[in-house]
Amino acid sequence: MHYFAGIDLGGTKIYTIIIDESGKILSRIKVKIAGNINLNFIVDSIVKTYKDAIAEAKIDEKDIKAIGMAVPSAVNIETQTLVHAPNLGWKNVPLSKIVYEKLNKPVFMDNDANMGTYGEYALGVAKGLKHIYGIFVGTGIGGGYIINDEIIRGDNFTTGEIGHTIVKMDGPKCNCGRKGCLEAIASKVGIVKYIRKRVEKKNEKTILDQISPNWSKSVGSSSLYKALAKGDRVVTKALNRSGKAIGIASANIVNLIGVEGIILGGGVIEELGDFLVPIIRKNLMEYSMANGADKIKLLISTLGDDAVALGVAWFVSLEKNKSYLYNGQ
Amino acid sequence: MHYFAGIDLGGTKIYTIIIDESGKILSRIKVKIAGNINLNFIVDSIVKTYKDAIAEAKIDEKDIKAIGMAVPSAVNIETQTLVHAPNLGWKNVPLSKIVYEKLNKPVFMDNDANMGTYGEYALGVAKGLKHIYGIFVGTGIGGGYIINDEIIRGDNFTTGEIGHTIVKMDGPKCNCGRKGCLEAIASKVGIVKYIRKRVEKKNEKTILDQISPNWSKSVGSSSLYKALAKGDRVVTKALNRSGKAIGIASANIVNLIGVEGIILGGGVIEELGDFLVPIIRKNLMEYSMANGADKIKLLISTLGDDAVALGVAWFVSLEKNKSYLYNGQ
Repeated sequence: MHYFAGIDLGGTKIYTIIIDESGKILSRIKVKIAGNINLNFIVDSIVKTYKDAIAEAKIDEKDIKAIGMAVPSAVNIETQTLVHAPNLGWKNVPLSKIVYEKLNKPVFMDNDANMGTYGEYALGVAKGLKHIYGIFVGTGIGGGYIINDEIIRGDNFTTGEIGHTIVKMDGPKCNCGRKGCLEAIASKVGIVKYIRKRVEKKNEKTILDQISPNWSKSVGSSSLYKALAKGDRVVTKALNRSGKAIGIASANIVNLIGVEGIILGGGVIEELGDFLVPIIRKNLMEYSMANGADKIKLLISTLGDDAVALGVAWFVSLEKNKSYLYNGQ
Repeated sequence: MHYFAGIDLGGTKIYTIIIDESGKILSRIKVKIAGNINLNFIVDSIVKTYKDAIAEAKIDEKDIKAIGMAVPSAVNIETQTLVHAPNLGWKNVPLSKIVYEKLNKPVFMDNDANMGTYGEYALGVAKGLKHIYGIFVGTGIGGGYIINDEIIRGDNFTTGEIGHTIVKMDGPKCNCGRKGCLEAIASKVGIVKYIRKRVEKKNEKTILDQISPNWSKSVGSSSLYKALAKGDRVVTKALNRSGKAIGIASANIVNLIGVEGIILGGGVIEELGDFLVPIIRKNLMEYSMANGADKIKLLISTLGDDAVALGVAWFVSLEKNKSYLYNGQ
């Protein structure tokens, strides 16, 4: 039996899994890396989660045939270079080469939202569809695009930057410096920014002060959910606005490229989907051009935390993707 | 020698050409149909332009092997039905069948912006590129999408509706009923609406009153150009706003699907491109994510008025597209 590792490197955690040839997950290891984004430290942590995941899967390391890594960055998949990961503070890192030299296995690296979309496409909720876009809403917003079994990365690896498509020209300022990005309105950062503004400038009250006193610096989606459940007005407004913007961005995809299905995933959707998805669906219908917008499949990720790691592990397990792997040259 | 007809049916004109197997245009016939959108009248006019174009090309009608038609509507290309053409007031018209029964030649119909994009892709400015989006700015705004030699029409034929992607959530009202569509800001309709608002509500003056006294009802792009050339402030503002919105919509395409090139065409670009294109380019750069936005090719249509008719004539001339043609069943 052959096995494959999938490593999901985020801004705050490393999540590593081992799968077999059928895509079955044999083990999962998650470690937090919050605060420490030193390259050597992260590489050592990747190696450790990899060894731990192999031990937990009770397999022999020699049967691992390839390693897939997904990173929060545009990736030049030809040179296997991480282009720029703002959350890690890294630019132009040849991470596949570095990991290959540590572990001596073929390594492939791609963008995390690409691989999350691919996971749902190959093994999750979008199985069987041919033309899909994935939108992952968390602290930021990323996306992935697949058509006819091909992951479209774009000539300059810009595909999937749906978080930085403009839904409100001259709108709220985004961390990227532009104005009116989807991310500035709909991501957790955008939601919190809006709440802060209403509290500071309009003197509105929020129950977040009790639920999560440090909310304006850092807040979990689950705390937002608690505030929502208690009927907090400003949190409700912020989430309505987020859902509307995601619905409009989804309709923009439909009107621009006519996909068959849109996948929604990420922490914000996982925690707040019950509230957000109906709003997203309503706006998707309202803003999509006629001719059957009601036929568009709005799909909720079923792989959850596994989507990205499973996507990249499955990708490297396929014979046809062998040429993408870095193996010393 | 085999010949092919290309018919570009617009809201105000029919433009018909004959090409040979090499794509060379042998004749062009243009007739105005403004005001009369009766189906029988239009079909008779199509037949007449077709016969006239054949006569002008000095060929024998029996050597015409297929007819391509492009229409200002979503088209179900499987059933060869025109879905809805607001400018013609038509819904669900099996136009290929009707024309086939009149002319007894295989007929194919597709959306006009698709075919304009295809024309530029196959024979015009985008020749050699693999992943492109065409944006055609006139009274309205349409688009077309091609990847790896395939025209992407979308499962519900919504692809190309870039005019109704939202660039300004809760922004100006569009003729489609939604708010903040690109078309409501950047098309000729959007430009004139903005000028009218500034003149009526803010009491600003415009030289259009002299150049084209009826401008608020109907104005040519060339009149807008004259006003611009004379330094008209409100026209300049309206065009700056249009260019910015088109630039942002172009960047949205790059960030969403990472195309190699964007083609700009249509009457507004033809007449006002000298002014608009630099603004579009600046905003495309500013709003595209890094990783080489400067490498995105912003291309100006070189086929002009011929693009759509030539695109559809060339499409039907290719052996591999034979199965798309309607020929009695």
